[in-house]
Amino acid sequence: PAHPDVVRAEAIEFLELFHAETPHAGPPGPRIDEVLWQIGVTGSYWHTSEELTFGARVAWRNNARCIGRLYWRSLQVRDLRKVADAAGVAEHCFAHLEEAHNGGRIRPMISVFAPETPSRPAPRIWNEQLIRYAGYDRPDGRVLGDPRYRDLTDTLVRHGWRPPEQPGAFDVLPLVVETVEEGPRMFPIPERVVHDVPLEHPELGWFAGLGARWHAVPVISNNRLVIGGVSYPAAPFNGWYMGTEIGARNLADRDRYDLVPEVAERMGLDTSDDATLWRDRALVEINRAVLHSFRTNEVTITDHHTESRRFLTHLRREEQSGRPCPADWSWIVPPMSGSQTEVFHRYYDDEVRTPGFVTDDDAAG
Amino acid sequence: PAHPDVVRAEAIEFLELFHAETPHAGPPGPRIDEVLWQIGVTGSYWHTSEELTFGARVAWRNNARCIGRLYWRSLQVRDLRKVADAAGVAEHCFAHLEEAHNGGRIRPMISVFAPETPSRPAPRIWNEQLIRYAGYDRPDGRVLGDPRYRDLTDTLVRHGWRPPEQPGAFDVLPLVVETVEEGPRMFPIPERVVHDVPLEHPELGWFAGLGARWHAVPVISNNRLVIGGVSYPAAPFNGWYMGTEIGARNLADRDRYDLVPEVAERMGLDTSDDATLWRDRALVEINRAVLHSFRTNEVTITDHHTESRRFLTHLRREEQSGRPCPADWSWIVPPMSGSQTEVFHRYYDDEVRTPGFVTDDDAAG
Ligand code: HEM
Ligand code: HEM
Repeated sequence: PAHPDVVRAEAIEFLELFHAETPHAGPPGPRIDEVLWQIGVTGSYWHTSEELTFGARVAWRNNARCIGRLYWRSLQVRDLRKVADAAGVAEHCFAHLEEAHNGGRIRPMISVFAPETPSRPAPRIWNEQLIRYAGYDRPDGRVLGDPRYRDLTDTLVRHGWRPPEQPGAFDVLPLVVETVEEGPRMFPIPERVVHDVPLEHPELGWFAGLGARWHAVPVISNNRLVIGGVSYPAAPFNGWYMGTEIGARNLADRDRYDLVPEVAERMGLDTSDDATLWRDRALVEINRAVLHSFRTNEVTITDHHTESRRFLTHLRREEQSGRPCPADWSWIVPPMSGSQTEVFHRYYDDEVRTPGFVTDDDAAG
Repeated sequence: PAHPDVVRAEAIEFLELFHAETPHAGPPGPRIDEVLWQIGVTGSYWHTSEELTFGARVAWRNNARCIGRLYWRSLQVRDLRKVADAAGVAEHCFAHLEEAHNGGRIRPMISVFAPETPSRPAPRIWNEQLIRYAGYDRPDGRVLGDPRYRDLTDTLVRHGWRPPEQPGAFDVLPLVVETVEEGPRMFPIPERVVHDVPLEHPELGWFAGLGARWHAVPVISNNRLVIGGVSYPAAPFNGWYMGTEIGARNLADRDRYDLVPEVAERMGLDTSDDATLWRDRALVEINRAVLHSFRTNEVTITDHHTESRRFLTHLRREEQSGRPCPADWSWIVPPMSGSQTEVFHRYYDDEVRTPGFVTDDDAAG
């Protein structure tokens, strides 16, 4: 379905912001006139590449859930708005993975594909992140791999995806790009761009034997980037991982890889009694393994203590710039050792601001 | 200052709730008439003791911050509304500590002292909890004891409190009760009602040598109980401790006892690098020591995993009873290993309901 006309007020608000924060761009008046004319004729408008870059950076700056915003000015923006076909989107996503990985020195980056326009719907990426692992039903009722993507895996198999002969716990799902012309199309992700890090523990030798691993670059691909009323549904972006995302959520949540009980058993903890804090102890060791392994493999990663401090630096800077900094406590406070981080000990503003990222629930397959 | 006339609407709303949930009390009409008459004549009204008990229990049930609400029906209510003088309040607080401690099998309990009335302001308790430890400035600029009560300690010393000859890290502050007639008066808390638990670790022998301890019963005394428009500023209540309150907050917060760095050093951890997760590891051990020591001393305590499960049971029961259960995510999710507890993985309603507890900022000394 075609997208409705861009709301003029949103365009004007964005252009005023852009010109206010970009002194060399001069006063916004002429550009606003031009954009209003474009909206009148086409129902939408085309951002200059400087506007696009600024818009994407400010969308990051405005995201209330992201603790990593200190470096928002450094976001690299790949202007791929001319790319609207499935194969083109997929190719550029693979290139994004490679450029962002950068040999381990991860670069925050976003690839902005064709926008939604009144005459043509934008391409969409089904996957929540470019790299996600399959989840397979096992005969014993449990799931091999990532249970969160069991349904997506099912769907893809019905669309013709062939899992490896020997299904494993870390099989990378194909990328699915949907366009109006072609419908959903699947593209296997080339192994060379995945960059899995095998996990080992600095002290516990048996840990490596668990066979746990995780990919290096988290490229979120189900958020819609909205700038000045223009919507970019395909705009995958990445930072580097904060260790807890892998160690305290992906590998530890009961409805994900649920490694805590196994690690606790291997550690010889008494798992018959919650009050021995076996969950807490195993959780810490999984997270140590994640941080240690990424470092050993020279892949950028950050820990939640460092990142909390950085975020408070960011907050102070934003305040000094006279800008409110929206933040959602329940997303900002790390999922482990919450009260040991300074971000725990305060409240935040949490109003929604634009430009921004919108989680695109209907984009999930 | 006298309390303004209680809002009739609040009285009616409460009485309707009480009669709706107390079938044997019959229809609310006659009681409402009586109460409205009392309000007309005196500006306030006197709860029956059954209304008081119900009101206090529902105030607990309504508290969005409390994870321990499963047992809300079991709250023991001490009706001390006739007690309005400072010495009387203090005596009954000490008795409360003893009855609630109950030889280690802690009983959830509330003592309700004289209400605020148009003719007479209620007594107030300055202390945040009945038992709080003093904080003393040290020559090196650090604080001996609990830094959170440094200012209160100062104030009490200026009011004539004499700390022990040898000030320690766990000196119990006197109770301060303020009435209009007498002003603030101090009452030393008798040692026999304190019941400190010395902390030792199940494996780390040196832990006991840190000299850390904590009192058995958390009696919160700075919350105002509000039932049907009547306000009880002095209504100290207690449950039992959840270990993290002591181990992840009181003893671990940087602006409290800040034990984490010391414990980490003793454990031989590399504290030069956040990514070794030395804070997380030390935090777990402090919390193990808390749970272990309370158990060894046969004092009721709960861990955050158990309590999270209980809370979700409570939530389901409330839903089955057709009642919304307000909950504040940032208070309900434990301050450590958040995502390992089920309460982390959902959102909650958080509207404020009455009867309720109101944190009385102006009651803090
Ligand atoms: C540079 C390093 C970065 C770090 C360490 C970081 C860290 C995080 C963390 C820990 C979360 C919470 C994830 C979760 O709990 O699921 C998050 C969420 C988020 N971040 Fe960042 N981030 C970084 C870069 C970026 C960049 C470059 C962007 C966009 C340009 C971004 C936008 C977001 C958004 C939109 C969310 C919310 C995602 C959602 O709703 O699912 N972040 N970030
Ligand atoms: C029976 C065992 C209980 C447990 C395990 C429990 C647990 C907790 C915990 C962990 C908190 C958060 C404390 C913090 O982070 O500072 C809390 C807060 C609270 N609880 Fe409970 N609780 C219990 C009983 C009670 C009782 C009996 C009442 C009242 C009758 C009560 C009323 C409250 C209130 C009002 C708060 C918020 C305190 C504030 O605003 O500072 N709780 N509870």
